[in-house]
Amino acid sequence: MRLGAETTRSLRAAEDARSFAILDQTLLPWRVVWLRIETKEAAAHAIRAMQVRGAPLIGAVGAYGLALALREDASDAALDAAHAMLAATRPTAINLRWALDRVRDAVLNQPHAARAALAWQVAGAICDDDVATCTAIGRHGLKLLEEIAARKPAGEPVNVLTHCNAGWLATVDWGTATAPIYLAHDTGIAVHVWVDETRPRNQGAALTAFELGSHGVAHTVVSDNAGGHLMQRGRVDIVIVGTDRVTRTGDVANKIGTYLKALAAHDNGVPFWVALPHSTIDWSLRDGIAEIPIEERGAEEVTEVTGLGLDGVVTRVRVASPGSPAGNPAFDVTPARLVTGLITERGRCAASETGLLGLYPEKV
Amino acid sequence: MRLGAETTRSLRAAEDARSFAILDQTLLPWRVVWLRIETKEAAAHAIRAMQVRGAPLIGAVGAYGLALALREDASDAALDAAHAMLAATRPTAINLRWALDRVRDAVLNQPHAARAALAWQVAGAICDDDVATCTAIGRHGLKLLEEIAARKPAGEPVNVLTHCNAGWLATVDWGTATAPIYLAHDTGIAVHVWVDETRPRNQGAALTAFELGSHGVAHTVVSDNAGGHLMQRGRVDIVIVGTDRVTRTGDVANKIGTYLKALAAHDNGVPFWVALPHSTIDWSLRDGIAEIPIEERGAEEVTEVTGLGLDGVVTRVRVASPGSPAGNPAFDVTPARLVTGLITERGRCAASETGLLGLYPEKV
Repeated sequence: MRLGAETTRSLRAAEDARSFAILDQTLLPWRVVWLRIETKEAAAHAIRAMQVRGAPLIGAVGAYGLALALREDASDAALDAAHAMLAATRPTAINLRWALDRVRDAVLNQPHAARAALAWQVAGAICDDDVATCTAIGRHGLKLLEEIAARKPAGEPVNVLTHCNAGWLATVDWGTATAPIYLAHDTGIAVHVWVDETRPRNQGAALTAFELGSHGVAHTVVSDNAGGHLMQRGRVDIVIVGTDRVTRTGDVANKIGTYLKALAAHDNGVPFWVALPHSTIDWSLRDGIAEIPIEERGAEEVTEVTGLGLDGVVTRVRVASPGSPAGNPAFDVTPARLVTGLITERGRCAASETGLLGLYPEKV
Repeated sequence: MRLGAETTRSLRAAEDARSFAILDQTLLPWRVVWLRIETKEAAAHAIRAMQVRGAPLIGAVGAYGLALALREDASDAALDAAHAMLAATRPTAINLRWALDRVRDAVLNQPHAARAALAWQVAGAICDDDVATCTAIGRHGLKLLEEIAARKPAGEPVNVLTHCNAGWLATVDWGTATAPIYLAHDTGIAVHVWVDETRPRNQGAALTAFELGSHGVAHTVVSDNAGGHLMQRGRVDIVIVGTDRVTRTGDVANKIGTYLKALAAHDNGVPFWVALPHSTIDWSLRDGIAEIPIEERGAEEVTEVTGLGLDGVVTRVRVASPGSPAGNPAFDVTPARLVTGLITERGRCAASETGLLGLYPEKV
């Protein structure tokens, strides 16, 4: 996607297969800094510290991290240890484990000497696949926006609401929830995006707004509290969000607060769609609320906020009353009954086992 | 309520009837500063700049502001002008107009020379009435918490979720939504409060947490996004919020985001109660969504956040991507169908015309 004057993916692998570079997303939108990752520990840190975030991008970084681990030690024991270490960095995203498994499975029966290079290739393939996947998601989602645009008076934009960042910064390129938006914009459909700020980490206000602004897509940042009111007043035509894990039955884990927007969409007859690559589907789970582990993150993400001071320096300020404790569940689960449908790289389907198996018959 | 070592109301009228003092709530919880208000303009500014907020307290400040105006000029024209000027400071809260009308009606047929002193008395009576009202709301709401406590295993606290600040800082004393909580705590019932931070102005994290902490009530600040998840996991026993205006039919206007919590409560079978004084009821309205005006506040409240810097200085930082516009609807309307019931100074009732008329038969 466009980043200033250049067009780039969000992860760049070095030619010599000894490192890869990521955008430090903890510094966006204030500063654009590429970080060079040369060890599995640095890859794990990047995921844990949320220098990278977004399920598909985390998977890609995990895969490259495992490849770097194999350069140090290609034994089965080292492979297992690095896999476990990287898998433990974020508990909710299923893509991470999926990507790590894909690398491990590819190298497990190969000679030790060939493992690192092969893992590097697999990590690259994971990235290429992600770009192809997001492009396909964009095509399938575009139809929804075209249909809405066709029903609206000329000149009125299609109003999309999104939560968190399921954009190109969360993937290798294009994004999931944003792919239809970028495609619509590029094909001349007027689109306006309501961007939930997405407390506590503000990925919407900081990252999604940054992305959309860079690409020239009209958008308005709103507090997470505003979406229900906007839907009640007819100012949202469709909600499109990403997800960190979808069960076989269509339950959707995504950034905390997604469930509230799904409830509001349902109450107001606004279509609520979830965009995802196949790697986000956890075919082993049937009950999202009972079975998906929800990461509890540090209280300081709620009690403190990072932003750009009037002096141009990135500053952290306390926003909660001193001495007050805080809770910070990072995700919630939206039951399938509230989801209008899923947009995958294979097409759109109902958020149900029947719907998903229609697109992925090999999983029957 | 307790404020450090002292017990105080949130508004203190001077003995000489020439000024009154308010806590500057834009500086809380970082600094406790009393502001002396000596003119109608200063009173209007305090309301507009949200140095005071909360429907009942705004009404009290408006009433004293009108009394100060009459000290300057007690003519009918000046009375009308000051009434209009003060009424225009915040469009959603019904209490403000109710309090201004009460002062105007009391002085209108009186000699000009007596008007200022009489208005001052009426403003004082409005404050005393508010304290009595909040105390009664506390008593009626306490029963709900007692019933929940009686069903819980010993030692397990009653978990209350609240949004924004309907505490003693929003009233003259005790608060509305918080009155049952303070009473329960004072009578030895274990209570724990989930405090929504309440973006964009953070009244929950800053004011409600400050109040509860000062009074020793156990609480946890959470992002506005978290409530649905907490309810889904059975960690909320009851939601109690305040309101800025209730229609004759039980629709509830309150701080933006309240509607989302009501949807989540409804979806999870969690009782959702609204605490209010009679002055908050707008008997002239039947359809909250169509008829209650929703104030749109400045975008900078969303794009910027005020907090305490690590250097101890209160600082403003930008949190949204530079160049991105923001929207800021300040309230939303929760339809009566999502409200379990109303808690007023006369008792509890269903959120419906029948329910309200049962408590206020003089309005039939």
